[in-house]
Amino acid sequence: MILRTRNTGGFTIENNAITGYDTFNGVKAFLYLEPEVKPDHVIVEGDNITLNTGSYPEVNRTSIILIFQSLANNILNIRYALSYISVEQAKKNLQNDIKTWDFNSLSDNGRRLWNSVLSKVEIEGGTENQRKVFYTSLYRCHERMIDITEDNRYYSAWSNNIESSNDTTFFTDDWVWDTYLALHPLQLILNPLQQDEKIASYIRMARQSGWMPTFPTVSGDNHAMNGNHSVAVILDAWNKGIRGFDLEEAYDHLKKTIFHETKLPWVKGNATWLDEFYDEKGYFPGLQKGEPETCPEVHSFEKRQSVAVTLASCYDDWCMAQIAKILNKENDYDFFFKRSLNYRNLFNKETGFYHPKDKDGNWIKPFDYRFDGGMGARDYYDENNGWTYIWQPYHALDDLIELMGGTEKFDKKLDQLFSESLGRSKWQYYATMPDATGNVGQFVMGNEPSMHIPYLYNLAGKPWKTQKRVRMLMDTWFRNDLMGVPGDEDGGGLSAFYVFSAMGFYPVTPGIPEYHIGSPLFNKIKIRLQNGNVFTVIAKNNSRFNKYIQAAKLNGNPLNRPVIIHNDIIQGGTLVLEMGEKPNYSWGLEK
Amino acid sequence: MILRTRNTGGFTIENNAITGYDTFNGVKAFLYLEPEVKPDHVIVEGDNITLNTGSYPEVNRTSIILIFQSLANNILNIRYALSYISVEQAKKNLQNDIKTWDFNSLSDNGRRLWNSVLSKVEIEGGTENQRKVFYTSLYRCHERMIDITEDNRYYSAWSNNIESSNDTTFFTDDWVWDTYLALHPLQLILNPLQQDEKIASYIRMARQSGWMPTFPTVSGDNHAMNGNHSVAVILDAWNKGIRGFDLEEAYDHLKKTIFHETKLPWVKGNATWLDEFYDEKGYFPGLQKGEPETCPEVHSFEKRQSVAVTLASCYDDWCMAQIAKILNKENDYDFFFKRSLNYRNLFNKETGFYHPKDKDGNWIKPFDYRFDGGMGARDYYDENNGWTYIWQPYHALDDLIELMGGTEKFDKKLDQLFSESLGRSKWQYYATMPDATGNVGQFVMGNEPSMHIPYLYNLAGKPWKTQKRVRMLMDTWFRNDLMGVPGDEDGGGLSAFYVFSAMGFYPVTPGIPEYHIGSPLFNKIKIRLQNGNVFTVIAKNNSRFNKYIQAAKLNGNPLNRPVIIHNDIIQGGTLVLEMGEKPNYSWGLEK
Repeated sequence: MILRTRNTGGFTIENNAITGYDTFNGVKAFLYLEPEVKPDHVIVEGDNITLNTGSYPEVNRTSIILIFQSLANNILNIRYALSYISVEQAKKNLQNDIKTWDFNSLSDNGRRLWNSVLSKVEIEGGTENQRKVFYTSLYRCHERMIDITEDNRYYSAWSNNIESSNDTTFFTDDWVWDTYLALHPLQLILNPLQQDEKIASYIRMARQSGWMPTFPTVSGDNHAMNGNHSVAVILDAWNKGIRGFDLEEAYDHLKKTIFHETKLPWVKGNATWLDEFYDEKGYFPGLQKGEPETCPEVHSFEKRQSVAVTLASCYDDWCMAQIAKILNKENDYDFFFKRSLNYRNLFNKETGFYHPKDKDGNWIKPFDYRFDGGMGARDYYDENNGWTYIWQPYHALDDLIELMGGTEKFDKKLDQLFSESLGRSKWQYYATMPDATGNVGQFVMGNEPSMHIPYLYNLAGKPWKTQKRVRMLMDTWFRNDLMGVPGDEDGGGLSAFYVFSAMGFYPVTPGIPEYHIGSPLFNKIKIRLQNGNVFTVIAKNNSRFNKYIQAAKLNGNPLNRPVIIHNDIIQGGTLVLEMGEKPNYSWGLEK
Repeated sequence: MILRTRNTGGFTIENNAITGYDTFNGVKAFLYLEPEVKPDHVIVEGDNITLNTGSYPEVNRTSIILIFQSLANNILNIRYALSYISVEQAKKNLQNDIKTWDFNSLSDNGRRLWNSVLSKVEIEGGTENQRKVFYTSLYRCHERMIDITEDNRYYSAWSNNIESSNDTTFFTDDWVWDTYLALHPLQLILNPLQQDEKIASYIRMARQSGWMPTFPTVSGDNHAMNGNHSVAVILDAWNKGIRGFDLEEAYDHLKKTIFHETKLPWVKGNATWLDEFYDEKGYFPGLQKGEPETCPEVHSFEKRQSVAVTLASCYDDWCMAQIAKILNKENDYDFFFKRSLNYRNLFNKETGFYHPKDKDGNWIKPFDYRFDGGMGARDYYDENNGWTYIWQPYHALDDLIELMGGTEKFDKKLDQLFSESLGRSKWQYYATMPDATGNVGQFVMGNEPSMHIPYLYNLAGKPWKTQKRVRMLMDTWFRNDLMGVPGDEDGGGLSAFYVFSAMGFYPVTPGIPEYHIGSPLFNKIKIRLQNGNVFTVIAKNNSRFNKYIQAAKLNGNPLNRPVIIHNDIIQGGTLVLEMGEKPNYSWGLEK
């Protein structure tokens, strides 16, 4: 057996236990490891050895080699635990968590624990493949956030200290740009108590570091992507009845962060002249094509993402406005609400797209919404092109419909999204848009900013098209075969779209406690809530072909709005959908 | 109804029939078209109009507009025919081929004709999806070549004349680089009489133009890709009993072409200094990385393809040697056979790859067999990288095994091919290798040069691995769902791999009348031959899991070589395979 550090670290052996550490982004991870039998020889590479590690740069590594000359059945049992606090704590973690050498009993215990988690949602019907995709997706929806509490303490990369967790749980590892849309909302339904502790963890990180993080990890705020969408996680939780955290404190941290931290993607630092420009003019300015960068803080690969940053900020400001309202801060509400309409500054009515403007207020022209903006369209958008960003102001979809000229044009634009040609050979397209995969026309199933789009037909008075699209998308892109799932799964970020859609509803706007109804894959879905209630979706006469809703009843009462609210779920109850092979064009038209 | 030319052409209308022509690559295609009812108005755009046609350059187009003011049931029947000879001939073609206005009877007739073609192979077992993929593949295997005979005449782009077809059929449209490996061999089994006429057509093209074409189309030799593989089509046909053409004349045309035409890819012209270099040194020289091109005739995008050209020439020369032997041309045999061993000059024993050399005989170093050579690795290989080209000398596979150091190393190299990482993100890989798709490790299911590779385990004494791989490849990459078939289908070129493999055998070396046995998808395959005989493959106890051959009998006699010969098929008979879930490591080891 060979153990080797990737970075700076080392190993020792004492009483047949290997201890040591490795270092990741400045944070030490400590190891305590026991083999069941004593090794015959042990070699510790006392001197650092230099290794060529292929695609990684050369590093100094340390190794320990354990040689076992004969083993019963050629099997060597080992068990180990990690700690971010110390070797001693790693040993205690092992003693707490793994008390046996019996592999089968450990495995049985793991299965029992996972079954209790996954059986919170019980399904009937569908094919075996669909059930497998559903439960593996639900499994992945529990990948983040991570509890790093160890015996009522945790190592905080925000204070660089070992902190007491005060008899609660400290969570980290969240990639909010990916998770605020569907994964957090799903966890709000399935595990609301943990959601409370997750938000309290966010507040602790802000208290310790001075900033509200956007991508917390074990080693601090990774600060990836754009926006400050922790505000959405917090507002959404509050509006769905989570009250165990201090909203006022959260708001103060958020406000400070939004005012003083730059909006530049992947940049952790103070506001730049671009941020001041935004505050003054109401949009993030883009560079004309070929114009050299004039703001030294801009990330050389991630670029300005000028439209994406503007749209993300509008939505975040809308969330801030809602919290300000809850906290009776009227001036703040007015301020943030007004800013939340900034998306209007970039809406190009001639084309029906959000369109970049330069610092002088000129549209950047000529402009190809499919390919302009370089790698992942990052000069103006982010990972996805202008087609995906049309639908981004989650908080102002009615206004978007108006800007476009009404529901008919909105519906037509959606249809065009799903049918507009890629425009280039697939390999050429992916060379520019490697994150924009799972394509149906210009629609991108493989990335989170598109997840709500098929549900927008509900707003256009065409719920049957939502039903048609979501079934097609689930069937096409989420498969129990070699093709798997598309694109950027992001620790459950995308899987949560599937779990919601397969259950028949989806949270289009985080912060608004409503879910748009799609078309469930299964005949019956039972959600067992932490409060003891059960919410059931029944799809009568459902099949691969019978995907269209003919009629709906919620707790026995006719439902003609394609929406349920959070309380409908949380109080328990039953949604019955009558399914059929042809659309019922008149169902779901109520506003 | 609007008709519009793409290029130079025009329309007239007389007696309710529209006639006209358009021009493609210098060849006129004439039209004769009749609407069932008379139009109310006709507008002929007498002056040419200039149109922007999107991705095409601006061209002068001519239009005719027919306006029908009222139609019964809103249906307008039209019928038309084309001719490469004249409008009058187009009219006769219509009268010969479409005698009715009854859509259903035309459709029924089409179905009847296709059924008689496709029912030459009758299958039992497999899933419905597998049967659909099989018959749609078999359908595509009839896409090329095309009969362009019109009333015993045809337009020849080789003589630029209307030629008599002398009571036979003139075929054109063949992309030999794609079709010589599996599509022609399949047609040799199913339609040998037509194969005779196809080769006679090749000889006519050569007689009329002076060169044996490599990519004949309606407008002449498109001369794409590399090699002169019509020689393989001709040798293979002769060795499989096709005798209705003049082999001596074919040989003379081939010899002249091989001696005087350049081997440069996608270049139609006389030999260059690179060809003289090849004749003298026995390999096509590559440029060192960054070295500027010194041969002006080299195609700016297609490059030298120095290793691919060398390997293609070796195989073509081997085919020439075999024909020379048949024709008792001993000196020619010696000459071509010696040249057929030139692949040895580029085999790098240290790495086990065919490796490019520069004009001074130096290996080009350092060298990455996965990515070096630019777009599609064309500096040295073609469309695929060095991993695919290891297996190219179809005529010298035993020698390849020896060069590699024996069957064990050969087997290991095959295993490595199927497991070696892509080495880059998919999108980065495809940006360089857009034609090398359908990957399993470095193996490329989506392009013809890889089709025989899974069968090479038979040569390594590991037939069970051939059985395992071909079933996995059919299951993974040839699907009756949105994922479809991979890569470059090339008018049946790739589908023929599937048809053969699903029937349980594959022609590894065109020119040698043998087929390597794989693992049939179906329980029973009946091939009804043109000579009235029937060849049947029976796979007993076959299933998705029972894919391994336990034992085999050919016409009642035990078969322990994983090979059948062409006569076994053509004489009719039965191959019985006993299938099982575990490999029988001792079956199929006879040489």
